[in-house]
Amino acid sequence: MPLVSRHLLGPGPTNPYPEATAGLAAPLLGHLDPGFLRVMDETCAMLREVWQTDNARTLPLSATGSAGMEAAFVNTVGEGDVVVVAVNGLFGERMCEVARRCGAEVVRVEHEWGQPVDVERVAAAHPAPTVVAIVHAETSTGVRSDVAALGRLKGEALLLVDAVTSIGGIELRADEWGVDIGYAGTQKCLGVPPGLAPFTISDRAFARRVETPRSWYLDLGLLGGYVGGTTGGARTYHHTAPTAMVASLHGGLRRILAEGLDAVWARHERAGRRLQEGLQELGLELFAAEGHRLPELTTVRVPDGVDAAAVRGELLTRYGIEIGAGAGRYADTVWRIGLMGPNADDDSVALVLAALRDVLRR
Amino acid sequence: MPLVSRHLLGPGPTNPYPEATAGLAAPLLGHLDPGFLRVMDETCAMLREVWQTDNARTLPLSATGSAGMEAAFVNTVGEGDVVVVAVNGLFGERMCEVARRCGAEVVRVEHEWGQPVDVERVAAAHPAPTVVAIVHAETSTGVRSDVAALGRLKGEALLLVDAVTSIGGIELRADEWGVDIGYAGTQKCLGVPPGLAPFTISDRAFARRVETPRSWYLDLGLLGGYVGGTTGGARTYHHTAPTAMVASLHGGLRRILAEGLDAVWARHERAGRRLQEGLQELGLELFAAEGHRLPELTTVRVPDGVDAAAVRGELLTRYGIEIGAGAGRYADTVWRIGLMGPNADDDSVALVLAALRDVLRR
Repeated sequence: MPLVSRHLLGPGPTNPYPEATAGLAAPLLGHLDPGFLRVMDETCAMLREVWQTDNARTLPLSATGSAGMEAAFVNTVGEGDVVVVAVNGLFGERMCEVARRCGAEVVRVEHEWGQPVDVERVAAAHPAPTVVAIVHAETSTGVRSDVAALGRLKGEALLLVDAVTSIGGIELRADEWGVDIGYAGTQKCLGVPPGLAPFTISDRAFARRVETPRSWYLDLGLLGGYVGGTTGGARTYHHTAPTAMVASLHGGLRRILAEGLDAVWARHERAGRRLQEGLQELGLELFAAEGHRLPELTTVRVPDGVDAAAVRGELLTRYGIEIGAGAGRYADTVWRIGLMGPNADDDSVALVLAALRDVLRR
Repeated sequence: MPLVSRHLLGPGPTNPYPEATAGLAAPLLGHLDPGFLRVMDETCAMLREVWQTDNARTLPLSATGSAGMEAAFVNTVGEGDVVVVAVNGLFGERMCEVARRCGAEVVRVEHEWGQPVDVERVAAAHPAPTVVAIVHAETSTGVRSDVAALGRLKGEALLLVDAVTSIGGIELRADEWGVDIGYAGTQKCLGVPPGLAPFTISDRAFARRVETPRSWYLDLGLLGGYVGGTTGGARTYHHTAPTAMVASLHGGLRRILAEGLDAVWARHERAGRRLQEGLQELGLELFAAEGHRLPELTTVRVPDGVDAAAVRGELLTRYGIEIGAGAGRYADTVWRIGLMGPNADDDSVALVLAALRDVLRR
């Protein structure tokens, strides 16, 4: 592994909190060690806090955030079920594909990229869907959508939420907002390396789940016994927990909750607004619709005549700064700048603005 | 994370090689960083060496070994396909369940636990199966089966092999033995924490794959672009690679290949034989059939009148040694002792024998 150090200011992964790195490097424990089981229990409890939920079934799935998306659909959507998906970026698009592979009849509700989800249109798209799905923070566009409002309109449907880029960064209240199924990733605002998918499912959704989902690995019926949270502490062997990654998540979550969730959200908010002001002062134009911009992930239009990839390359080689290209058809016309986890701070803002000013000669 | 140090001498995870821990703790790179892409390419190349394969599609899947099993079936088995599974322990059993969820017609070929697979019976079980599946090293029983012999008898079927506990520990020659699809785990003889599934698939099997598998996350058609190995280096975004875990695997593989694969296999062989002799000298009886015992994982019958769990507890609290309980119905009557990766050495053998002698008062 090249021992090069980067400022990870793209759409994720971000640099980990030091406590998350310490968890990785701590002496490895077996997945059935009493010490590890305590770490797992504490991790699930802390995940409930960052999700703001009481769901017993809240756990870190043993794969990346994209597997969280798969787990969400594969456990709740069967052959012929209707799934309404709000599509306002790459990850809404992906939800359609994953739902289709579960045999769903997918009702897409299309939006322009860069715009938030129109929740009334989504709620009206079908009279009785099994699931309504929305991305809270679209990583492809830097836009926040109003999950709480969709929760008020969902009716009998289950509300399925992608919180990959929102968890630990902006306000997220799973229970209060009526979220039935939520998945996230570790490598964004939680400040932990990629590799786990924090997941939560309500009792209501669990009771309506697919009995034998197509995936054995992601079968929540089996995973309840694995974490022990719903069996009075008894554990059944399902798969070998990725103990180093769970210890890392444990470290990151402890750090976040020690600072306080409100304080962490405020820190992300402050850093993001400063960056967005600074970029506009440099004469750059933001991509996401005003009033719906994520603080933790800012999208910027590449100025006419500027080679987007060359600028990213120069930031990387001269400053060790990674920022992201745009997603999909915006690959060459948008940049994505993330301020997540430990990087949601003044010095990351100052650094990336100074470097951009220099590289763009502004 | 409790900073307690364990001798992990159970069925896995094992203690990692120091190089694997260093990989985890190295500064995190983004999943698209040129430095990380090099690490990924080198990791895939080193995986080809430990699999002994030229398969272009050889990569670390971003989940644990059990997801490797799911990927193997979900990409090659469709509705109504016939899958013959050799069942001689827990993991053969699990293969049946995973294959069923893919819609397969499963033909089980049952064996007594502790015995190797009877490959002629397996080959004769169905005239024209799509897939024939076998566990190379049964983690539940400590038994090795003859994959090469099944490879000679497989006919037109694809040969699917679980190498979770064999890879990096005992002779494994995917290409020479006719393995079409293989999956493994990192936390056994590779000496890396759990969290990735080293995977390989032949061109022949890939050509016969399921076009749109039920799993998006484990779709090998999409994952080819992710690692770039089959696209001339071009990458397409699929999911965020678990960069810390890949760096860790990179460290472990470098260590193994620096020592030499033959030397590593010989070291596991030597340690395992010494342990098995020592246990018999203590008057203990081995569980796995003679002549088919894995060196890296030894199964021992619990002597009459001995409380199996109490002994494991005393080894853990007094010596910091973790050994495993038996699997399934052997939970209270068998112990499993692993000597994997860095623990395949004289001092681990001496330590566990001395501790057992003491705790058992022999």
